[in-house]
Amino acid sequence: MISTEKFIQDCLLVRSQSPLVHNITNYVAMNFAANSLLAVGASPLMSFYAGEMEEIVGIASALTVNIGCLDENEMEGMRIAAATADRLHKPWVLDPVGAGASTARTQICKELIGFHPTIIRGNASEIACLAGVCVEKSRGVDSSMASDDVVEAAKALAKASGSIVSMSGATDYITDGERVETLRNGDPIMSKVTVMGCSATAVTGAFAAVDSDPFTAALNAMALWGVAGEKAAAVSAGGTGTFAVKFMDALSTSDAAADALLIRQ
Amino acid sequence: MISTEKFIQDCLLVRSQSPLVHNITNYVAMNFAANSLLAVGASPLMSFYAGEMEEIVGIASALTVNIGCLDENEMEGMRIAAATADRLHKPWVLDPVGAGASTARTQICKELIGFHPTIIRGNASEIACLAGVCVEKSRGVDSSMASDDVVEAAKALAKASGSIVSMSGATDYITDGERVETLRNGDPIMSKVTVMGCSATAVTGAFAAVDSDPFTAALNAMALWGVAGEKAAAVSAGGTGTFAVKFMDALSTSDAAADALLIRQ
Amino acid sequence: MISTEKFIQDCLLVRSQSPLVHNITNYVAMNFAANSLLAVGASPLMSFYAGEMEEIVGIASALTVNIGCLDENEMEGMRIAAATADRLHKPWVLDPVGAGASTARTQICKELIGFHPTIIRGNASEIACLAGVCVEKSRGVDSSMASDDVVEAAKALAKASGSIVSMSGATDYITDGERVETLRNGDPIMSKVTVMGCSATAVTGAFAAVDSDPFTAALNAMALWGVAGEKAAAVSAGGTGTFAVKFMDALSTSDAAADALLIRQ
Repeated sequence: MISTEKFIQDCLLVRSQSPLVHNITNYVAMNFAANSLLAVGASPLMSFYAGEMEEIVGIASALTVNIGCLDENEMEGMRIAAATADRLHKPWVLDPVGAGASTARTQICKELIGFHPTIIRGNASEIACLAGVCVEKSRGVDSSMASDDVVEAAKALAKASGSIVSMSGATDYITDGERVETLRNGDPIMSKVTVMGCSATAVTGAFAAVDSDPFTAALNAMALWGVAGEKAAAVSAGGTGTFAVKFMDALSTSDAAADALLIRQ
Repeated sequence: MISTEKFIQDCLLVRSQSPLVHNITNYVAMNFAANSLLAVGASPLMSFYAGEMEEIVGIASALTVNIGCLDENEMEGMRIAAATADRLHKPWVLDPVGAGASTARTQICKELIGFHPTIIRGNASEIACLAGVCVEKSRGVDSSMASDDVVEAAKALAKASGSIVSMSGATDYITDGERVETLRNGDPIMSKVTVMGCSATAVTGAFAAVDSDPFTAALNAMALWGVAGEKAAAVSAGGTGTFAVKFMDALSTSDAAADALLIRQ
Repeated sequence: MISTEKFIQDCLLVRSQSPLVHNITNYVAMNFAANSLLAVGASPLMSFYAGEMEEIVGIASALTVNIGCLDENEMEGMRIAAATADRLHKPWVLDPVGAGASTARTQICKELIGFHPTIIRGNASEIACLAGVCVEKSRGVDSSMASDDVVEAAKALAKASGSIVSMSGATDYITDGERVETLRNGDPIMSKVTVMGCSATAVTGAFAAVDSDPFTAALNAMALWGVAGEKAAAVSAGGTGTFAVKFMDALSTSDAAADALLIRQ
């Protein structure tokens, strides 16, 4: 079970420490991910320029790498950043967007996993693919599988990689290969707004920056994110434009103690 | 005249089939275009990486290519994607953003037209330029011409290219070179919010994915888009921030049968 | 003191002339900056493609260069654009995002300053770094210094570069090295929404396009921007999603004469 105390502690630490989180993310997500980080209290920096990767990782408290929009230059930045985080023992989060949708995506993910991501955060299709149980061609970047059907694969990926696996879906699953925690907050509208998953990855990076236990960091980040989504959905009447605005409002005005009461496992 | 029955059918097909639409679009538009596609019920994938273009076009139901932000790498991705769509007979939509504003823009458009776009969707200045009747230097990416003055050029472009031409403006014109349909929905505020045209292009891609007749696909997509704009403008009081949110709400909560009653030709 | 008459005049000129403003900006900011320009009445064009830089600068009334997301290709575009603006005596604004956060950022800024930016607009950490008084490693792209502590450095930078320096913060400072004007509008929430500074830079570009005096252009642009932020904050209840929407509403529905009464120096 999630610890209310640790959840509140992590939320408050992000606001008090305002960790610098370095993000290599896709062009679709950059603005929303940066705003998600500011909303929870962190300080975002978005850059994939190889010429500054080592320096930026060096001053950051955590790194997130999201492979959403591939590009030769960006992939080079990803490799240097991940290698630097690995070498400096800084927490880093891999978001394998669209793994399985193309050979290149699956390939760069496997390569990056070699740099020991602290946490791998993705949807069910992506996690299944990386676990080697991709039974059908992924439908682009949206999941074609339910997270409930991929729990064993998520555990296997965690064991094989040594990373915490954080899989979003109707139910979110966080596992280290042995333990499995679930989170049942959120709302179906979240799958109708782009880059919500990338926002989850960014927030996970902020929590990994302040919590040395990546399992609780991943769990608490997804709890905050899911509760914010649920609160926003309740006041959006199905409009995805309003939902996106209210989601950012919920993140930025979140009260950790009050939110803790809303977590459903 | 637009067929109410076919309009409703296309809208429902996009929601039921949720076609994967592959978009090569500019950095300004990526988020808004992806959200527009999700709002109408489609599944967006944004990528211009040459190393996965053939695979991604292969699994997508339609492609849109928007030349908004040029870049050598991105142009290479555009060429491969357009050539692949042409070879596989997949519907694809060209958005010639800023054609006429620079030699490079006009040039890449002409090159891409060689790959037989199913639909060319642009504003009056862009369409005029591609039809060879660009009488003045384009004012950047905003139109300096009224769509009413460019109808003959639009017809000529459709004939010469074999593409459906979908031209947005105070009045939208859709033509195959012979037939011309008009749409008079929308609101002037739509020209004060960036990438609205890119959203129209994305939505057109979704409709082309489910309707084998590109003329009706282009017409029905622009009808849905224009009605959504008009509904959003009615509740925005001139604020462009609110308009953008309400536009996405209108798209995501659209009711095809109710929207059909609002179409003005 | 700010001249109410000149403030109103500049605001109205941007709306009546709708100057084409060419922006090389980062991926996080592109959409928000373009919408900021449309909201104040200008016509934005976002491009960094080296192959069209000279042509685009040639047709634009002003240029803004924001180094937010570095990339070899983008830096090449920056150099050509800045050199062209310098040669053609077109007003251009440099936004040194994250100067001091990495060697590459500081380096490209110094290089671009060689092309005589009309206005340098940045936060306190960035201005201090460019003035050579960077005492600590910048905390990414967010300022770690208060603008009040950097006034002398801002003056020194203006003198050394020949540029107007426009420094944002709790108090904004605009200086030509001798004169110093202050603006005290705004709200702390503005530092919790990403790319607000990039929006200020874009708006400054629009004002520089219509006002041949860069000092008053910089001052009036920041006054409009700060008042809009203050008005938006008053109706956002701490929600950063709502704030961003209301900020764009405030810019797009601004009434120069009414706004002039709200300026606090």
